[in-house]
Amino acid sequence: MTTPTVDHTVPATDENLHSKWDGGMDPVLTVSPGETVQFECRDAWDGLIEADMEPADVPKALEQREDGMPITGPVAVEGAEPGDALVIEILNVEHDDWGWTVFRPREDEFGLLYEEFEDWGLHYWELDDGVGKFVDGIEVPLDPFPGTIGLAPPEGEIRGMAPPHDAGGNMDTKHLTGGTTLYLPVEAPGGLLSIGDGHAAQGDGEICGGAIETPITVDVRIDIDRGRGIEQPQYHMPGGPSHLSDSPTYSTMGIDSDLMEAARKATSSMVAHLDERRGLSRHDAYILTSVAADLKINEIVDRPNWAVSSHFPEDVFPE
Amino acid sequence: MTTPTVDHTVPATDENLHSKWDGGMDPVLTVSPGETVQFECRDAWDGLIEADMEPADVPKALEQREDGMPITGPVAVEGAEPGDALVIEILNVEHDDWGWTVFRPREDEFGLLYEEFEDWGLHYWELDDGVGKFVDGIEVPLDPFPGTIGLAPPEGEIRGMAPPHDAGGNMDTKHLTGGTTLYLPVEAPGGLLSIGDGHAAQGDGEICGGAIETPITVDVRIDIDRGRGIEQPQYHMPGGPSHLSDSPTYSTMGIDSDLMEAARKATSSMVAHLDERRGLSRHDAYILTSVAADLKINEIVDRPNWAVSSHFPEDVFPE
Repeated sequence: MTTPTVDHTVPATDENLHSKWDGGMDPVLTVSPGETVQFECRDAWDGLIEADMEPADVPKALEQREDGMPITGPVAVEGAEPGDALVIEILNVEHDDWGWTVFRPREDEFGLLYEEFEDWGLHYWELDDGVGKFVDGIEVPLDPFPGTIGLAPPEGEIRGMAPPHDAGGNMDTKHLTGGTTLYLPVEAPGGLLSIGDGHAAQGDGEICGGAIETPITVDVRIDIDRGRGIEQPQYHMPGGPSHLSDSPTYSTMGIDSDLMEAARKATSSMVAHLDERRGLSRHDAYILTSVAADLKINEIVDRPNWAVSSHFPEDVFPE
Repeated sequence: MTTPTVDHTVPATDENLHSKWDGGMDPVLTVSPGETVQFECRDAWDGLIEADMEPADVPKALEQREDGMPITGPVAVEGAEPGDALVIEILNVEHDDWGWTVFRPREDEFGLLYEEFEDWGLHYWELDDGVGKFVDGIEVPLDPFPGTIGLAPPEGEIRGMAPPHDAGGNMDTKHLTGGTTLYLPVEAPGGLLSIGDGHAAQGDGEICGGAIETPITVDVRIDIDRGRGIEQPQYHMPGGPSHLSDSPTYSTMGIDSDLMEAARKATSSMVAHLDERRGLSRHDAYILTSVAADLKINEIVDRPNWAVSSHFPEDVFPE
């Protein structure tokens, strides 16, 4: 998509993709500390979702899926050893001109509000001019990032792709955009960095289980912080929270003695708010909340009840 | 503190304070929908903490405490009935020129990291020119709000002051600053609004259990949204997240299958980061994280592991 100005490129060809975290994998590339690499990444479902599909077509498309999420890598860094951190400077992220968001039906028990939605959900996005086009003139600002960026576990260990782990992986963290520097603990010699699961936009939480899923390229500079000794990911952002920062914001709160239930209440109230007061269908409200609303823990100490809010940026609506 | 330009004022005199949510209380004032009220509020511990105290003095001071947190009210709104929402437009919040932050020792089992701190903690703040003065030239931007703002439960029901409940209360939510409009479900006739627990600054989570605690005055316009039918608090902010918005930000992630444990890991890593890499004592790092760092739920769907980040705004450090 962009002309590479990097030291190396890893194209998204079949031989450069994998779908498990495996500490025993051979790297597809080995780089020196300080070098730059462009990762080309397919979308999370490898092109299965097409523009003319309806929600009911999604399960049929999924039947064609053989492997899990295809991520690009791994890339080894010379000299990286357990106890070090890889320092991954995210230089630039470019997305494609299309994307999709899917949620699963109740029976799949996936997504924060799965109990409230009987059927499959789908929105296919046209991505242009820095925004994703939704219904009713709604435009979601784009701020692309890799949903999955992580290192391999220790040699001999294999981890699934879906849950994030100590060395990162499927963190689905919207803050890992261009400009952010990510620190990941090295568990296998060389670190073995892989990237994939492109997201053009997402709210904190990724509440329906999907962002605006799209192919991306990610340019990174990779270095080693020797003996850094962190146990889980850390990251530095040059500025504060991104596209939400100066928008009017509507917030729904969930108060409960269980933090997950508080998050569920906050999100359920946001979907109801967008449905009842903004005229969106519940299908559309669930998807829009997943790609645009942020989950914040307001209060986590006033025992026995905690407070979580869903923050929705109202500048996505037409004036 | 400010010259009242409001329809009514409720001073923080003994007869206008209470320390329980009681649906059977007589209001100290009854207003018409649309009227404005200034609530004068004492600090959460009613002046017990003084400028020359050391952390070890806190438990001795606390022994003098007879009642719980003193909040101001309740104020009834003519015609408000269960099923309605009170619409509380927060017009202005003013804080005093002093404040304090306390954390409790391990044996009290209070605060997100209580297991990591043996002793009492205390910082007494001088508040001036929009910032709170910490150690080493660190200045925390102030954005005052009431930690506690809520309505009474149904008549015949009494609720404690510490945990937030369906009609709000001790939400400790930093976004309820001047300019925000809060919606609370009415449970008792008249609503019975009370406000207190002034905070000059706080991070999302209030992780050590304390904000910058200070006396405040809160000017509000109170109205009724008839039959609104919300079940928990909602709020609207004219702009996005406040003082964090354009600061460089350092973030530590907690990944775990339990959301509370993920929040604990994220916070524990932030305290360690400020201690090890910014040279703060762990005592100071815990307090600074509570008043300045925000907890965000990054990912809540990639079963079985969830991701929570603590976001620390680096512009609090001197250049």
